[in-house]
Amino acid sequence: MRLALERGFFFPSAEIYPSAPGGFWEYGHLGVLLKNKYIQAWLREFVRRDEMVLIDGSQILPKDVFVASGHLESFADPVAVCQKCGSMVRVDRLLEEVTGQRVPERTPVQEIEGMIRSLEVKCPVCGGHLGGVSLFNMMFKVHIGGAGEEAYLRPETCQSIFIDFPRLHKISRRKLPLAFAQLGKSFRNEIAPRQSLVRLREFYQAEVEVFFNPATANQFEKAFEIRDYPLRISDEGSLRTLRCEEAVSQGILSSWLVAYYLSLAQRFYLSLGVPSEKLRLRRLEDDEKAFYAIEAWDLEVDTSIGWMELVACNNRGSYDLSGHAKVSGTDLDVRENDGRITPHVFELSMGVDRSLLALMDLSFGMEGERAVLRLHPALAPYSLAVFPLVDRPDLVAKARDVFERLRLDFDVFYDESGSIGRRYRRQDEIGTPFCATIDYQTLKDDTLTLRERDTMKQTRVAVDSLKNVLSEKLLL
Amino acid sequence: MRLALERGFFFPSAEIYPSAPGGFWEYGHLGVLLKNKYIQAWLREFVRRDEMVLIDGSQILPKDVFVASGHLESFADPVAVCQKCGSMVRVDRLLEEVTGQRVPERTPVQEIEGMIRSLEVKCPVCGGHLGGVSLFNMMFKVHIGGAGEEAYLRPETCQSIFIDFPRLHKISRRKLPLAFAQLGKSFRNEIAPRQSLVRLREFYQAEVEVFFNPATANQFEKAFEIRDYPLRISDEGSLRTLRCEEAVSQGILSSWLVAYYLSLAQRFYLSLGVPSEKLRLRRLEDDEKAFYAIEAWDLEVDTSIGWMELVACNNRGSYDLSGHAKVSGTDLDVRENDGRITPHVFELSMGVDRSLLALMDLSFGMEGERAVLRLHPALAPYSLAVFPLVDRPDLVAKARDVFERLRLDFDVFYDESGSIGRRYRRQDEIGTPFCATIDYQTLKDDTLTLRERDTMKQTRVAVDSLKNVLSEKLLL
Repeated sequence: MRLALERGFFFPSAEIYPSAPGGFWEYGHLGVLLKNKYIQAWLREFVRRDEMVLIDGSQILPKDVFVASGHLESFADPVAVCQKCGSMVRVDRLLEEVTGQRVPERTPVQEIEGMIRSLEVKCPVCGGHLGGVSLFNMMFKVHIGGAGEEAYLRPETCQSIFIDFPRLHKISRRKLPLAFAQLGKSFRNEIAPRQSLVRLREFYQAEVEVFFNPATANQFEKAFEIRDYPLRISDEGSLRTLRCEEAVSQGILSSWLVAYYLSLAQRFYLSLGVPSEKLRLRRLEDDEKAFYAIEAWDLEVDTSIGWMELVACNNRGSYDLSGHAKVSGTDLDVRENDGRITPHVFELSMGVDRSLLALMDLSFGMEGERAVLRLHPALAPYSLAVFPLVDRPDLVAKARDVFERLRLDFDVFYDESGSIGRRYRRQDEIGTPFCATIDYQTLKDDTLTLRERDTMKQTRVAVDSLKNVLSEKLLL
Repeated sequence: MRLALERGFFFPSAEIYPSAPGGFWEYGHLGVLLKNKYIQAWLREFVRRDEMVLIDGSQILPKDVFVASGHLESFADPVAVCQKCGSMVRVDRLLEEVTGQRVPERTPVQEIEGMIRSLEVKCPVCGGHLGGVSLFNMMFKVHIGGAGEEAYLRPETCQSIFIDFPRLHKISRRKLPLAFAQLGKSFRNEIAPRQSLVRLREFYQAEVEVFFNPATANQFEKAFEIRDYPLRISDEGSLRTLRCEEAVSQGILSSWLVAYYLSLAQRFYLSLGVPSEKLRLRRLEDDEKAFYAIEAWDLEVDTSIGWMELVACNNRGSYDLSGHAKVSGTDLDVRENDGRITPHVFELSMGVDRSLLALMDLSFGMEGERAVLRLHPALAPYSLAVFPLVDRPDLVAKARDVFERLRLDFDVFYDESGSIGRRYRRQDEIGTPFCATIDYQTLKDDTLTLRERDTMKQTRVAVDSLKNVLSEKLLL
């Protein structure tokens, strides 16, 4: 965290204002570069590979959308207001802290109220008496235009996909199953935002919604290629590695379609450098699931602050399309073979911000006094740093020349100050996988010293071949 | 517009709901690909080329930010409510329609009220009597957390840059002038949103804020390379082409720094295929300028609906940093040579959505019955379409093979249905610069037919060399 703040990966929003509320964070230069690399990988490994349909929808949506989605009624946390200091407290979390026991997602308000009274739980801020428990809706409301029409900031990007489905399905001229993908911001008015990028009020999601016919979810052509793929499945407390075929035939996964998309998610994070022993697909218990989910899996990774959910995988059934069809009065069914059906939806909802935090956390290490961010080369903010060995005009000029030739192909860093050891350390801290040093020999034979972050090994490389050497090492 | 809707480049948000408010639009698959290409070009030609510092800030910011920026007081349109039907009407626009005369941005409310009365202007919806004129603030308000703290959706992305400036300037370890860049969404509660992507309530901006010392804005190293660059300057109604050196020495531009960044903006749009005779940099008159601007230039292009502003270039002086320093109580000055100064800011604020609309508009043409989108190859949603000449299994299999080998390097489209002529037409409509047809000869000698969109010329190319041929033609 200190590294992230000092090097400007991310930091609190509006920090010069004492009045700035929590739960809002900004990405600085290195954070934006890292995020862009992550998104490029997502577009390459998810969207292109699976030939998904992209959309980018509005963040502000009319009230009716959230009547239909159920968020207006059900997307709420139990809270109580302290009668002494006036703080609003999220009481399910508070009870978990007090009792050490989990309070399931949809525990009735009366039950929570009963526990507060019987355990005599007080306000965590001032010790005062807590008033009655009520539900606090987590959506941000806005008013539009002269008439002040009620609208909301979307709490999940996928609602845009559901309401755009009829037009986009028609335009695509393709049959089910068909996956749609969207990267964008969502907003949740959390009572207790926490742990920097883990629980934000404004955050990026990369969501995939796969529309399918439940009757044919097992006749799924693409599943053939993942039959033997080993999934890391955590179910009822035990973690096992199962081939997709085993997981489907034993009824652990509901269909080949689900197996295929869970494989895609697991493969994605492994390809970004997450060690397989630090990743699991955990089945959610009934009382943990979101209100719309039939079957739910979380892709989690083991970080320094514990297992962290990075992707929520939900079988939402026909819940969403049915709701929107009813409230909007629009028929959202599609023609399948000899009849019409309401498609079901399987969703992969990635938290982008917390994924970046987890990937940084997993790649962070100390080598003696030296902090190293061993980010996968495809994720590193800079692919390469170029610098002169010493601050001598001819070496500086040559380094600038090399920099100019490379910077339109790669993200290149340029650093002319401090000792060479200090410059290597600064690059190690931000995860730059390669450093190219321009030295006296460069002036003679046009070769440079290429130094690798992880091995600290140094090799001589011709300036002219650097582009090819890097393209190969970076798999670009 | 019909093409955009039918092919799903963009379309109205939440269109299945009759209650959906105007001014919100969605990007479909082709629109997202086009937007991504535009952003890549911006990152390459602006951010990397000028070594700018990237940030990505929160869209929701606390009230104090907009007290300091002046938006809470000054970012408002004059409106009147109809006494008969209750519609809220933007009266400066209404007066412009009625009189055919421009009503400047900051005309006092009393003056507008006077014109409404003397001209007896009525409600455009029902003909009813218009009530008193007042100012309607265009920011969307939200309430945060249990205490419901007042906050706003930012009306321009740049406020994030101003408030992050102290941390980011320190981290960058660089001297002024220093440019910061941000891509993100902004929000304006327009009374009368219009013309699809031209005036939206939720929109993308790509903003650059250059912090500089006004005392040394002419000692600007980079200016040397643009001394002879011809700017298309429109000033007091006359359009002239002037070399940067002439524009600066004649006092038309206030400094070499301004000349350099205006060149960058003009060059960017020319490089994306805007013909130079359809582009101008227009000096804004005093009564057109935003409330914070000292010197203001609009980069405009000539579209089928008239000249459209794509980039607002404003010299904001020290207005923003002074305001935030005062309200936050934080010193935002920086050390320059032998003293401390409040940096001035020159801004290039690009409207991303309207840029895409203008670029599509300028590249649209009809060749007889055939619609062609002559997008610059670097902007085309797909670089290449691959398809079999006829629906014969061996040709289809071969086409799929070629597709697989290329799709991770390029955005490739795959189309197996309809006559070859019809498939070419579908690609022309969405701007695909190249089509590769797999025919009988491909099976014999592993060559294919490469067809170019603009010339309709067809050449034989070896499958193995296609990647290189395309890389060269696309300048990738």
